[in-house]
Amino acid sequence: SNTDQGQRGSLPSSLPSLAESVSQWRDEGRVAVWLHVPILQSSLVAVAASQGFAFHHAEQGSSTLTLWLGEGPSRLPGFATHQVGVAGAVLDESTGRVLVVQDRNKTINAWKFPGGLSNPGEDIGDTAVREVFEETGIKSEFKSILSIRQQHEHPGAFGKSDMYIICRMEPTSFHISFCQHECLRCEWMDLEELARTENTTPITSNVAKLLLFGYREGFDRIDITMREFPAVYTGLFYKLYHRELPESYRNMT
Amino acid sequence: SNTDQGQRGSLPSSLPSLAESVSQWRDEGRVAVWLHVPILQSSLVAVAASQGFAFHHAEQGSSTLTLWLGEGPSRLPGFATHQVGVAGAVLDESTGRVLVVQDRNKTINAWKFPGGLSNPGEDIGDTAVREVFEETGIKSEFKSILSIRQQHEHPGAFGKSDMYIICRMEPTSFHISFCQHECLRCEWMDLEELARTENTTPITSNVAKLLLFGYREGFDRIDITMREFPAVYTGLFYKLYHRELPESYRNMT
Repeated sequence: SNTDQGQRGSLPSSLPSLAESVSQWRDEGRVAVWLHVPILQSSLVAVAASQGFAFHHAEQGSSTLTLWLGEGPSRLPGFATHQVGVAGAVLDESTGRVLVVQDRNKTINAWKFPGGLSNPGEDIGDTAVREVFEETGIKSEFKSILSIRQQHEHPGAFGKSDMYIICRMEPTSFHISFCQHECLRCEWMDLEELARTENTTPITSNVAKLLLFGYREGFDRIDITMREFPAVYTGLFYKLYHRELPESYRNMT
Repeated sequence: SNTDQGQRGSLPSSLPSLAESVSQWRDEGRVAVWLHVPILQSSLVAVAASQGFAFHHAEQGSSTLTLWLGEGPSRLPGFATHQVGVAGAVLDESTGRVLVVQDRNKTINAWKFPGGLSNPGEDIGDTAVREVFEETGIKSEFKSILSIRQQHEHPGAFGKSDMYIICRMEPTSFHISFCQHECLRCEWMDLEELARTENTTPITSNVAKLLLFGYREGFDRIDITMREFPAVYTGLFYKLYHRELPESYRNMT
């Protein structure tokens, strides 16, 4: 844990005192120094950089720098590595039709499920509900996760990785009113047609086939369902997604 | 897309010229400005901040700032929001025992699966293999994903969210040689005992029950399996995880 061994503090206001402090912390056997710098005092960041500090991360009005003083390569934890995108496969079970869009500003006009990036602190299912509504005007409810894709050096992710999750959603409204800025077209398409068409992405085609399998043979064959649990150390709650577990196993003690 | 409408460029070297440039970009109808600043020139960050710029992100030797000039709240994409942690549930099918550890430096000495944070650009299964080996000395192979947990404001994630994934692993070595820095204890424990014990976390207990269900009734009941696909726009490949899809559905056209 970094707080055990690291040094947190405010930045000394001049070069000599920072150099002296670093020297002292090194002598004391500290393995790392963390600095938090308000953006308007960023001239001090250059001073710290000249002493070997580098950015750990920065957000809005402040940056955080680190200097590793321990042996070998830094063992400090990194910053967030993934953005999370969520799409909703909204299936109208009464008609067998699924909600699809074609993005504006893409070279290939492929049918896909409406979706977008999660906001900070937003749950997977909530992103799906929000993005489906923003793009298509359709209201829907989260049922399960269908698929998870991990991709590194994702375009538009600033060199970071992307986790893209497709959810099974149940519509609670049916009249399409789609976002003209984001979408070129939006419609309820027969699920089997989507599963067979070439005018789509490999992942959409694959998940359409999976959803068709579930629609015909039972959603329990494809669903990754959600349960809520209390977190052990923090008193927070979290959502856990996995295959349905029979009651007899859930309750065993 | 931000590149269509935004302005990318190097930072003018003085306050008046940045103010003039921003004014000009605004007049030209630009909706956003992105600035990339090398860490040793961070005094310019303070200058930009006084013109309304804020950090978008920073890593190692440079920071990126943005200024939104468009109407309403910023529609610029955010930076990575999640760290990804991966644990391995390594089950020796011949004995019905599973590999468990107790963390050092935790107040509650609960049995859990070995695991840790993904390195940048590392696939889920590769993190599981690496972390299991680093913590326990056991070599293993990735079989499937068993569960995904999402938690916000995760302790130790610098205010960001955490995605914690438990994988089903098959051991290819059996002699434990555990990391004394990270672990207090490490052993092969009977899976049913782990599923029943109170000396564990809720998530470990739950996934132990799930794994026991799969061990007894078939892993196809619990597995979220992996397939590799080509990415459509980039020529990259990605890994997609979902429930097993029958051949007849996979190959439909």
